[in-house]
Amino acid sequence: MQTILAINAGSSSLKFQLIQMPDEKILTKGLVERIGIANSIFTIEVDGKKDKTVVDIPDHEDAVRRLTDKLTSSRIIQSLDDIHAIGHRVVHGGERFTDSVVITEDVMKEIDEVSELAPLHNPANIVGIRAFQEFLPQVPMVAVFDTAFHQTMEEKSYLYSLPYEYYEKYGIRKYGFHGASHKYVSERASEMLGIPLKQLRLISCHLGNGASIAAIQHGKSIDTSMGFTPLAGVTMGTRSGNIDPALLPYIMDKTGQTAVEVLNVLNKKSGMLALSGFSSDLRDIEQQAETNDRAELALEVFASRIHKYLGSYAARMSGVDAIIFTAGVGENSDVIREKVLTGLEFMGVYWDPVRNKIRGKETFINYPHSPVKVLVIPTNEEVMIARDTVRLTK
Amino acid sequence: MQTILAINAGSSSLKFQLIQMPDEKILTKGLVERIGIANSIFTIEVDGKKDKTVVDIPDHEDAVRRLTDKLTSSRIIQSLDDIHAIGHRVVHGGERFTDSVVITEDVMKEIDEVSELAPLHNPANIVGIRAFQEFLPQVPMVAVFDTAFHQTMEEKSYLYSLPYEYYEKYGIRKYGFHGASHKYVSERASEMLGIPLKQLRLISCHLGNGASIAAIQHGKSIDTSMGFTPLAGVTMGTRSGNIDPALLPYIMDKTGQTAVEVLNVLNKKSGMLALSGFSSDLRDIEQQAETNDRAELALEVFASRIHKYLGSYAARMSGVDAIIFTAGVGENSDVIREKVLTGLEFMGVYWDPVRNKIRGKETFINYPHSPVKVLVIPTNEEVMIARDTVRLTK
Repeated sequence: MQTILAINAGSSSLKFQLIQMPDEKILTKGLVERIGIANSIFTIEVDGKKDKTVVDIPDHEDAVRRLTDKLTSSRIIQSLDDIHAIGHRVVHGGERFTDSVVITEDVMKEIDEVSELAPLHNPANIVGIRAFQEFLPQVPMVAVFDTAFHQTMEEKSYLYSLPYEYYEKYGIRKYGFHGASHKYVSERASEMLGIPLKQLRLISCHLGNGASIAAIQHGKSIDTSMGFTPLAGVTMGTRSGNIDPALLPYIMDKTGQTAVEVLNVLNKKSGMLALSGFSSDLRDIEQQAETNDRAELALEVFASRIHKYLGSYAARMSGVDAIIFTAGVGENSDVIREKVLTGLEFMGVYWDPVRNKIRGKETFINYPHSPVKVLVIPTNEEVMIARDTVRLTK
Repeated sequence: MQTILAINAGSSSLKFQLIQMPDEKILTKGLVERIGIANSIFTIEVDGKKDKTVVDIPDHEDAVRRLTDKLTSSRIIQSLDDIHAIGHRVVHGGERFTDSVVITEDVMKEIDEVSELAPLHNPANIVGIRAFQEFLPQVPMVAVFDTAFHQTMEEKSYLYSLPYEYYEKYGIRKYGFHGASHKYVSERASEMLGIPLKQLRLISCHLGNGASIAAIQHGKSIDTSMGFTPLAGVTMGTRSGNIDPALLPYIMDKTGQTAVEVLNVLNKKSGMLALSGFSSDLRDIEQQAETNDRAELALEVFASRIHKYLGSYAARMSGVDAIIFTAGVGENSDVIREKVLTGLEFMGVYWDPVRNKIRGKETFINYPHSPVKVLVIPTNEEVMIARDTVRLTK
């Protein structure tokens, strides 16, 4: 048995799960928020209850110190030596990382070099890793990249129709994200179906506040809706997804905003928030859909964009064996699943409105006779991180 | 019998066809190029032969004067009174024009107001109309819009997931283009199939130097790949089609170009030209595909993007009855049609590699047993202009 700490560090936050492998049992989980801001919040599960402390936590090192102290003082583990290895989520691995990797100084340098492609995320991930290196220098660490799973895409999928030197000089191409999630649910789907991944054509719909669709053929991602950044693809909570690229200069001209300001609008003030006019949260929008036309419109646009990707990715793989819904919206919203799935009989999708009325648990929602299976699978990126960490530190 | 002049005016050009209706016989056609530039070229078909004159033509009015003189002096028509009506192609009709319309001063004002949405095209169209009004003030004229056919799209299709006021204040939405072409081939497909348009779900692929795909359900466009501008959608000759919108600021930052300069790259230096590295012309690229990897890559990317739209639009209409290929590439390239159609059996497309080996004529290229029919139909935007002109000036 091995105890693995799975870490997701943001610029002012640190999410963690302590997982016992190989049985994938969660020993504890929690979150440090507002790091470097007054009144930081440290939340951790102890004996099944949430233990919340409000205290100033100036930096990630202090967060790590408090976390490791708490793990032993509350006897979740006996000593820090019980932590076998630590897996860190790292957003961008560029073209360099096609799989998770044991962290060395060379790897750290390369993660730093890729930071340019994810300036909001990679530097925070690096800070998280450094903080743990400080306190637990002897514990092996693994980096698990959001992009790595999609590195199996062919050139014809990942290249934009842009000057070729933009790819060569600036790394401009489709990378794709949510890799750990797409990989996790595709492996679970294979288990639930009792069919090896190598024989499956899957479409995975990771629908949360961020959303991406992936075409997974024989266990490999061959296309995905997000692009160079997580802005591309379908409509999301606050992100526009794909738009006519000519709109950027037009909006700049009309509103007097700079390119960076318009980009900020596309990332933070668009999507479901803009369509509904009041919320980026699908639960709020669903509640008002019957009485508010804009809320209904937001649901229709969101579902329609995903619906079209299902057809598109079925074409990409010459058909599909199973469709997977995961993440907050995918796991919990029968309304969105219904809208997304309606009218796909032509490609063999026969879904069951009764079975569809479930929330947040692993299940099939297709009719038994449906050639294409439809699965709801709660995602678990932390377990994916733990699995890769065990695999690489054995 | 009525003689209709179909006009397509550019900023320095004037294309024309004189068409006898209702039998849609072309009496003559031609082109004035380099208007306002030294050594303008006036080409017109007389008795089946091209008659070419190189002479300075300072403006569109002079072009119209030469054209009308030539039509009578070469006895193509007996007198200008024989011209029953003139149909003008106008690129952008905004949300105002949902059909072609008889040109009045009010209409001219409205076309001018929409110019902001198509600053390169509408002003030139207006100059063309004014020139004919000068010489043939008594002849009724009709404006035929590229966008009108797509005005049947629902809100969920035409709205971007952007702040709603961008739509209300600035008219930012999907408009779609190539309307006359998509309409023409959908009507021809209905005739060839012997099935009323109202019972058909069609996907029309207009593949030329510009390219757009349209989902046409029961005779109405319900979705199309071009967007606010003709830059959006699939890879084209020199246009990028859809890219991650976050790339614009990134490219600006990396290359030091302004937003407008980057937009120029996306419109004129991207697409097949950028992928192949040597030509935007599919014929050149096909010729080199066997020996040049980049040429082969360009074909793969182009075909793959269209292939995905076929799946997407089949999903949009809960299946498809027929797929249409038209315009330069669509009519003539069996290589592209093959790549686009391969692997669509899951949605009922069984195409015949032997029948596919045709160029530029109306034909079916599916196997007889194929549930989904596949048609090649040479487009004829001028006939569409003539038909609308007759319909509205009866």
